[in-house]
Amino acid sequence: MADNKALTPRATDFSAWYNELIMKAQLADYSPVRGCMVIRPNGYAIWEQMQAALDRMFKDTGHQNAYFPLFIPQSFLAREAEHVEGFAPETAVVTHGGGKLLDEPLVVRPTSETIIYAMYAKWIQSYRDLPLLINQWANVVRWELRTRLFLRTTEFLWQEGHTAHATEAEAEAETLMILGLYRNFMEQWMAMPVLTGRKTNSERFAGALRTYSCEALMQDNKALQAGTSHNLGQNFARAFEVRYQSQEGKEEYVWNTSWGVSTRLVGGLIMTHGDDTGLICPPRLAQYQVVIVPIYKADAERAAMLEAADKVKAELQTAGIRVHIDGREGIKPGAKYYEWETRGVPFRFELGPRDVAGGTVMLARRTGGAKEPLSLEGIGPRMVQEVGRMQHDLLNAATLRREHNSFRHPETKQAFIDYLEGGGGFVYAGWCGDPAVEAEIKEQTKATIRVIPDAEFRSSEAPAKCIWTGRPAVAEVVWARAY
Amino acid sequence: MADNKALTPRATDFSAWYNELIMKAQLADYSPVRGCMVIRPNGYAIWEQMQAALDRMFKDTGHQNAYFPLFIPQSFLAREAEHVEGFAPETAVVTHGGGKLLDEPLVVRPTSETIIYAMYAKWIQSYRDLPLLINQWANVVRWELRTRLFLRTTEFLWQEGHTAHATEAEAEAETLMILGLYRNFMEQWMAMPVLTGRKTNSERFAGALRTYSCEALMQDNKALQAGTSHNLGQNFARAFEVRYQSQEGKEEYVWNTSWGVSTRLVGGLIMTHGDDTGLICPPRLAQYQVVIVPIYKADAERAAMLEAADKVKAELQTAGIRVHIDGREGIKPGAKYYEWETRGVPFRFELGPRDVAGGTVMLARRTGGAKEPLSLEGIGPRMVQEVGRMQHDLLNAATLRREHNSFRHPETKQAFIDYLEGGGGFVYAGWCGDPAVEAEIKEQTKATIRVIPDAEFRSSEAPAKCIWTGRPAVAEVVWARAY
Repeated sequence: MADNKALTPRATDFSAWYNELIMKAQLADYSPVRGCMVIRPNGYAIWEQMQAALDRMFKDTGHQNAYFPLFIPQSFLAREAEHVEGFAPETAVVTHGGGKLLDEPLVVRPTSETIIYAMYAKWIQSYRDLPLLINQWANVVRWELRTRLFLRTTEFLWQEGHTAHATEAEAEAETLMILGLYRNFMEQWMAMPVLTGRKTNSERFAGALRTYSCEALMQDNKALQAGTSHNLGQNFARAFEVRYQSQEGKEEYVWNTSWGVSTRLVGGLIMTHGDDTGLICPPRLAQYQVVIVPIYKADAERAAMLEAADKVKAELQTAGIRVHIDGREGIKPGAKYYEWETRGVPFRFELGPRDVAGGTVMLARRTGGAKEPLSLEGIGPRMVQEVGRMQHDLLNAATLRREHNSFRHPETKQAFIDYLEGGGGFVYAGWCGDPAVEAEIKEQTKATIRVIPDAEFRSSEAPAKCIWTGRPAVAEVVWARAY
Repeated sequence: MADNKALTPRATDFSAWYNELIMKAQLADYSPVRGCMVIRPNGYAIWEQMQAALDRMFKDTGHQNAYFPLFIPQSFLAREAEHVEGFAPETAVVTHGGGKLLDEPLVVRPTSETIIYAMYAKWIQSYRDLPLLINQWANVVRWELRTRLFLRTTEFLWQEGHTAHATEAEAEAETLMILGLYRNFMEQWMAMPVLTGRKTNSERFAGALRTYSCEALMQDNKALQAGTSHNLGQNFARAFEVRYQSQEGKEEYVWNTSWGVSTRLVGGLIMTHGDDTGLICPPRLAQYQVVIVPIYKADAERAAMLEAADKVKAELQTAGIRVHIDGREGIKPGAKYYEWETRGVPFRFELGPRDVAGGTVMLARRTGGAKEPLSLEGIGPRMVQEVGRMQHDLLNAATLRREHNSFRHPETKQAFIDYLEGGGGFVYAGWCGDPAVEAEIKEQTKATIRVIPDAEFRSSEAPAKCIWTGRPAVAEVVWARAY
């Protein structure tokens, strides 16, 4: 059971609120291993719902799952120059196996491009073998200095897609299709609106030609990079000799993409929707969408209430709603309400003798508002509507919040700095394209360019000048401090 | 595409047949990392079906999923004396992280008892927190000297259940419930009959009080340990101080169980059902239960056949059948048949202009027999029947084979030896209970005691004497050479 101490309010200390919420809702826990977390059943259930939705979307777009080794020979990592520079410093290294020193140390995968493309070199011979569209659900390890539950842990769970294509255009189309798929998932399942766009070269994945990203704005106005999709060009194909014979009989290098989202998304969900009471889980990702709490005084009432609850449960299940009856004895209804609210269950049914006699249940929504008696008649379809409405309302609220915390085109450098210093969110501004300027702004404001936004997020009038240098702008970019 | 070289027949070289089948059906591949395999999409799809069925069974019996760290501090492993003795020699050890030598080396989990019970010590306070029923889907690493695809690899995928209970009786009930659940899965999904029973002390899990096992007999008459369920007693509870306050207010140690099955099951499925053509996948675990191959000559026919195939597919899907249309161009129908046979797809529909005109499809069963025209009328329910029948027939055939290759109560020690030397399977015999005798038999015959069988597998008349020493038998046991 969750403890009863109230959470530190978000406004007081967002970071403390976040950690306390996770512990209190039993989503995760610290482990005895530096930087590694334990994902507890309540948190893992959300990840399972995310996995199920994403896996369906990957399969519907022609991808298959496979599994590649956890260990990567150290020499493999070194074959792509930028890749090794990016990842080698944060690897965990196995030096001993079966009691003996290994001839070559093995890196615990920080990402699997190298081992996967080494296999693709073996599997791909002809244009008939393309495209090759594979996804892997796996754990990866990156030796992070500062870790935070779900957001940045030494080990985390993720999926990594790795595809090979005959042409650059096909690889680019795949990269963008997946970016759209991620956005769709984040908006429609997580109710978390995201900006999409391209990363600048300095924020690009180590070894990629181009990196695209989905960026969300958390309640503390910090950005969260929620998912990335990379066009790897032929960099890894050249490093691992992944070639195919074209229809014209020529030997060509393939074009690769890779893309991933991780358990970090659970952190994003918490920081998008949580309130000072606890988690608010969007219904489409909730393990239980409805929890039924039977209310009774005498023992004789208990049996009748549980029986009534069973009937309601069956009705809801028929309509495709995920339901749980909290029939625990020795815990008062109020304590149960509190626990399920902390855990973020979207809807609660209170079911007592008077409700049953009147053919109703009392509905409480996790998002607030007055409780409402619902007729048992047609309760399944009604709750399907409620799920859709809450899902919609959560996305709407988060989108409004983001727009309220976005600043388009500050007039001056000082206004830009002030907005960020004042705890503001996304800032849209012109940029001269100079990486040195990007670095200087980061140094002085702690903000980074989150994306060069896709067309639909760009301002109708593009800024003409760089906010920092006053030089002509090459692009409108979005700045924010980020996780 | 699979290559066209025929498999080495099972009768010629079972081991070669097994490896060739896996490569040809593209179930898995060797990786550049010693002892680690790549599970390719065709193989991983079977594992996903297994996971889905098992996960449902675990949840239906009250278990929840969670995730614990990959790394275990070396000192944790050492806390339970038998456990460290059993596992330390085969661990992979991380000595460096983030470019620095670690203060304490980290073991890559060979199994997770130690890290999980360290967390349980934190989570469990009172009898109200019990039972705690958690399962984890994860990768584990054991540094094996001799590896074989699926059967024994340095890294493998598995699930490991870990539960904590208030009493020994409850822990024992859980251990046996899971043993039955595994058996049910192996028989009803894998169509792989198993003997269940207890392991002798020398074959017990390192740290367990009692180990129970499901043992299957492969086509080469070697036994496969397919799943184990352990009553851990209070061994780990004492080592990790996992205590609870009982209803009477006393501090007590919990009782633990752990249990697991792994990707080894895919190997068991292959060796139970495969034939000299390739894999035969039991329909309940097949990614595609039916593959439709459209047959056409002219291009105009192609569109009509694909349209007809789509209709058949929709009908089958409505009935809950998993279907794939092989509409690839430039590959002849015969080559497609061959490829899907190798991959083990249970049913093939051949669909040509004459079939469509006659309102039929031609059905071919992977298990053999004449092709049969099926009316499109009611084809969904018909295929549901066919799936059930093939599933049943496969289990039947495997059970008959096992019984045919079991020998109850050899009269003499020599008959016992001869049966094993002659490539026989399970031998039921009396045993005096002496571990030294068990070791001597293993040394001389390469056979081990697979289980002390559960009541239903015991002979109606128990053997009175030990087959080796002639001393009074303490139990009837089952011997076999094993993977």
